[in-house]
Amino acid sequence: MPRIAKIIECVPNFSEGRNLEKIEKIVQPFRGREGVKLLDYQRDEDHNRCVVTVVGEPEPLKTAVLEAMEAAIAAIDMRTHEGQHPRMGAVDVVPFIPVKGVAMPEAVELSRQVAQAAAQRLKLPIFLYEESATAEHRRNLADVRKGQFEGMAEKIRQPGWKPDFGPDEIHPSAGVTAMGARMPLVAYNVNLGTANLEIASDIARKIRHLSGGLRYCKAIGIDLKDRGIVQVSINMTDYTRTALYRVFELIRIEARRWGVPVVGSEIVGLVPMGALIDTAAYYLQLENFKAEQVLESRIYE
Amino acid sequence: MPRIAKIIECVPNFSEGRNLEKIEKIVQPFRGREGVKLLDYQRDEDHNRCVVTVVGEPEPLKTAVLEAMEAAIAAIDMRTHEGQHPRMGAVDVVPFIPVKGVAMPEAVELSRQVAQAAAQRLKLPIFLYEESATAEHRRNLADVRKGQFEGMAEKIRQPGWKPDFGPDEIHPSAGVTAMGARMPLVAYNVNLGTANLEIASDIARKIRHLSGGLRYCKAIGIDLKDRGIVQVSINMTDYTRTALYRVFELIRIEARRWGVPVVGSEIVGLVPMGALIDTAAYYLQLENFKAEQVLESRIYE
Repeated sequence: MPRIAKIIECVPNFSEGRNLEKIEKIVQPFRGREGVKLLDYQRDEDHNRCVVTVVGEPEPLKTAVLEAMEAAIAAIDMRTHEGQHPRMGAVDVVPFIPVKGVAMPEAVELSRQVAQAAAQRLKLPIFLYEESATAEHRRNLADVRKGQFEGMAEKIRQPGWKPDFGPDEIHPSAGVTAMGARMPLVAYNVNLGTANLEIASDIARKIRHLSGGLRYCKAIGIDLKDRGIVQVSINMTDYTRTALYRVFELIRIEARRWGVPVVGSEIVGLVPMGALIDTAAYYLQLENFKAEQVLESRIYE
Repeated sequence: MPRIAKIIECVPNFSEGRNLEKIEKIVQPFRGREGVKLLDYQRDEDHNRCVVTVVGEPEPLKTAVLEAMEAAIAAIDMRTHEGQHPRMGAVDVVPFIPVKGVAMPEAVELSRQVAQAAAQRLKLPIFLYEESATAEHRRNLADVRKGQFEGMAEKIRQPGWKPDFGPDEIHPSAGVTAMGARMPLVAYNVNLGTANLEIASDIARKIRHLSGGLRYCKAIGIDLKDRGIVQVSINMTDYTRTALYRVFELIRIEARRWGVPVVGSEIVGLVPMGALIDTAAYYLQLENFKAEQVLESRIYE
């Protein structure tokens, strides 16, 4: 069996969602490369944006990301870019996510290395964000991106907005890029047996960090009109510190006040195995369980 | 990333637990071989037995198992073998367990191929057991092994005990071997907040298949004297049909009758990821969850 010691996930967002030929050129560096696996890429015409999901060992992943960035900058001109999604560069944002055998500091270091190399090679100003941020006000992507491409030439001259790497002015056609390490996001929704949106919104307010809830939990209430029910729609920003089951049980407790049942929940997209192990271990009251006891993890370790 | 389509686990039991040199010779074919990974091997001096856990792709695994069997037969003479564990051959039993990308019929077919090749090459009579069994009375290992090495020369001449492959008489020094495909076993224990062994034994009786309980569940009560509590000690013989959480909840329900709390549970050794996913999905009431949504499974698919 092959031994794979370290795996990092990367989810670069490129500002091209319409021209398939250009998208293929951008994605090409992730294909057929030893030590790198393209898991998915999804383009959105309205957003005019393409989101790539790729995993790999650190070194080959670095090379592939740099090549994809180069292809994107050659293909995309932000001066004529239109789309509904906020954006500030041809390579809008590049998060690195530790998956296996990699701790956060190493993912941060990787993001810095790629940022430095990309800035130099592509003459691109780069902001480090999330866990890689060099100042607290530059941690949140929305704050970094505020002003978007059109406002960036002005913004990076302001105090506190000097790029971490690259020139002190925007790339004329490619703008700027945010790059950094972050935990995997888990998109998790809990469905309630009521059509009353107010209840979902009330519970969302109570469980989310913003308004007094759990630290790594974002949530809103959503109306699932087709099914005649409502949903608490959640983004878990660090499942290792705010566990899935804790959010689920908290919602159940709050729903009880309304006499409303939890009728189901769903995980949208990918979820790290650790989040499910943690959940099973909680409910089964498992003592001393280790992730290495999972047969599949032993096979690939 | 390497693509591994099919993985089978094999847990051969060899009748040598004392002579380290001999054990090394038997284990050697599983080392450093492309497509095969030795996960563990444990010897027991009292049992005079060594249990190997290995995973691999079907073809290289077959070759390695055959070589290990050959080494074991060269090294072990059952005529002088003593040990507490019941045994009937130098290579006592060889189960094949489907792990990934392999359905049970394919694991059965693999066990038949290995049995045929081993019988021919090593002049060894082989009984197919468990899912590979050719008659219902030969399915259970304990039934096949009854009489042990000393009684086998006589037993295989009895009606219904002609070996599936190989000669109609025992191998003089290696006896006979059982080979077959089975589901992974999960060793799962539930701890009760009482020192009363009778309660654990009563609950074990109620949940196990033998005395009216769940189909793929074996259980006994055990005294954990060190901790001053008792335990329901369980062997789950098919977690895909008798789920872990169902056993756990059933024990909780039965413990309630005694006013005894469940204070914890433990998984001993390895557990397939599917058993934990199933548990998490039950408690979170997950809708439409697929194993492919687990990030790690996507990486290696």
